[in-house]
Amino acid sequence: MNSLIIGGNGFIGSHMVDNCLSCGDSVRVLDLYPERYRKPLPNVEYLRASILDKARLLESLINVDVVYFLANSALPNDGNTGLIADIQRDLIPFISFLDLLCDNSQAKLVYYSSGGAIYGNIENNPVSEDHPTNPISPYGILKLAMEQYIKFYVNTRGLDALIIRPSNPYGTRQGHLSMQGVISTFLYKIWKKEKLTVWGDGLNQKDYLMVEDLVSVTYNLVSNNRSGTYNVGSGKGSSLLDILELIKEVTGANPEVEFIPQKKTDVKSFILDCTKSLKDQDCKPRTDLREGLSGVWEWIKETF
Amino acid sequence: MNSLIIGGNGFIGSHMVDNCLSCGDSVRVLDLYPERYRKPLPNVEYLRASILDKARLLESLINVDVVYFLANSALPNDGNTGLIADIQRDLIPFISFLDLLCDNSQAKLVYYSSGGAIYGNIENNPVSEDHPTNPISPYGILKLAMEQYIKFYVNTRGLDALIIRPSNPYGTRQGHLSMQGVISTFLYKIWKKEKLTVWGDGLNQKDYLMVEDLVSVTYNLVSNNRSGTYNVGSGKGSSLLDILELIKEVTGANPEVEFIPQKKTDVKSFILDCTKSLKDQDCKPRTDLREGLSGVWEWIKETF
Repeated sequence: MNSLIIGGNGFIGSHMVDNCLSCGDSVRVLDLYPERYRKPLPNVEYLRASILDKARLLESLINVDVVYFLANSALPNDGNTGLIADIQRDLIPFISFLDLLCDNSQAKLVYYSSGGAIYGNIENNPVSEDHPTNPISPYGILKLAMEQYIKFYVNTRGLDALIIRPSNPYGTRQGHLSMQGVISTFLYKIWKKEKLTVWGDGLNQKDYLMVEDLVSVTYNLVSNNRSGTYNVGSGKGSSLLDILELIKEVTGANPEVEFIPQKKTDVKSFILDCTKSLKDQDCKPRTDLREGLSGVWEWIKETF
Repeated sequence: MNSLIIGGNGFIGSHMVDNCLSCGDSVRVLDLYPERYRKPLPNVEYLRASILDKARLLESLINVDVVYFLANSALPNDGNTGLIADIQRDLIPFISFLDLLCDNSQAKLVYYSSGGAIYGNIENNPVSEDHPTNPISPYGILKLAMEQYIKFYVNTRGLDALIIRPSNPYGTRQGHLSMQGVISTFLYKIWKKEKLTVWGDGLNQKDYLMVEDLVSVTYNLVSNNRSGTYNVGSGKGSSLLDILELIKEVTGANPEVEFIPQKKTDVKSFILDCTKSLKDQDCKPRTDLREGLSGVWEWIKETF
């Protein structure tokens, strides 16, 4: 297959690149930024451009079978500021992209939404794809709107689309600011001998998935010609306190931990029901959290 | 009470003005346009301005207890065009408005969403407020996003908000283009001796509510200090064929009717479950459809 990965130099995108290459795909990356944590790969065609650059976007779509859309400027926990800027930077360019895609290509769209932000406060765990979607954060509101616009193009323009709702992905090459992944952030801070911060009491359970598993499940769904909406998670819940314990074991460190009040836009415990996406996976188990953490810890020690 | 009605010279807004005046409120209207079908009312303070005009908007909020938000440039059936323009004209200014409201006023916000567009395809009729929201039209996608942003401001800024999800309102002073109310459109076309157009087979049932009932129910909810989300409809379903029959009886006309294929973004039958809002209404019945139609017919004959 000929794959285009928009945002292919980012966290999930760069792992999607690896997965596609290892499966023998021809891989093109459209990204505004260069690879951040490694040199450009020899077998990838890189196009450095914004998705607002119509000419480059059109060029990037030539002969492409699948487009993985992983460009996103908003951050999940960026909360109360810049609502309008997020609409202007993410939602509006995305609709322009959908128009251009439908006008110029037959490629399948694979869109990464958010399992964590889109359902809002959960009625019952685990959460399947037909759980009501009541996002409480601006990030979730926009992700849901983007999903709904995709479905509108599916209904009215014949777009073929696969929507992935990942749980909390973690892994190498993830950002380590506190508003990105908590696992990378904690490990990075331990490496830098900084204090860790826990929002809330640390008892809420979330569903952590190693990024290699996320892209591998996605790729299998694409290979099996799936369309529609799929949760992709580990299906297991871990609290921040669980993670802290595991991290202490893996790193041998005993970091200082500060507990501060939870933000109102944080969802409480959530664990994804991944029955639907697991059917396509030949019963391959997801990576164990301890094993995944160890890998990220090794990478952080090598990199920073 | 001191009421501000944004969009108070429009269809629903002008009836809200009447209702507030008859209940003894002090009424201010902020609208970009003048009254369309009648002279300005002597007891109303009119401010002619866009909601983008920050200075006038601030002025309009002075000493106001309740803001009814009825400014909307998108149309329910405008379908496939101008998605980005709708975001720029409706969503972004609305968020600016919410910011300005929360920064400068303690007024309660009453927002008119859409019962017809917000739920999408219905699992079971009648539809209560906790039915999943899966809008299939761009109009519904934006209405839902605006509801969710309101709830975000309620959670994070202490905004007091009442969200009304009306069924299909009809009545005097409604637009009579085919993309607005079907009852006004049909009656207007009969008056002008034009052919009527029915999308689909005419058997889908919808929930029609006279606009005077809509604003009266809204006002009662406000008077009873209600917040949160309320369906407001008749609770009864009528098909387009039912309406055609009633219209023939009321007008004595026998119009030519053309049936054309349904649009993909039209929702199928839907009837609102209004149990929650009816509790506040002292058992006052909603106006009978035949009686309501007759009133609109008389108004159309006088006006055009």
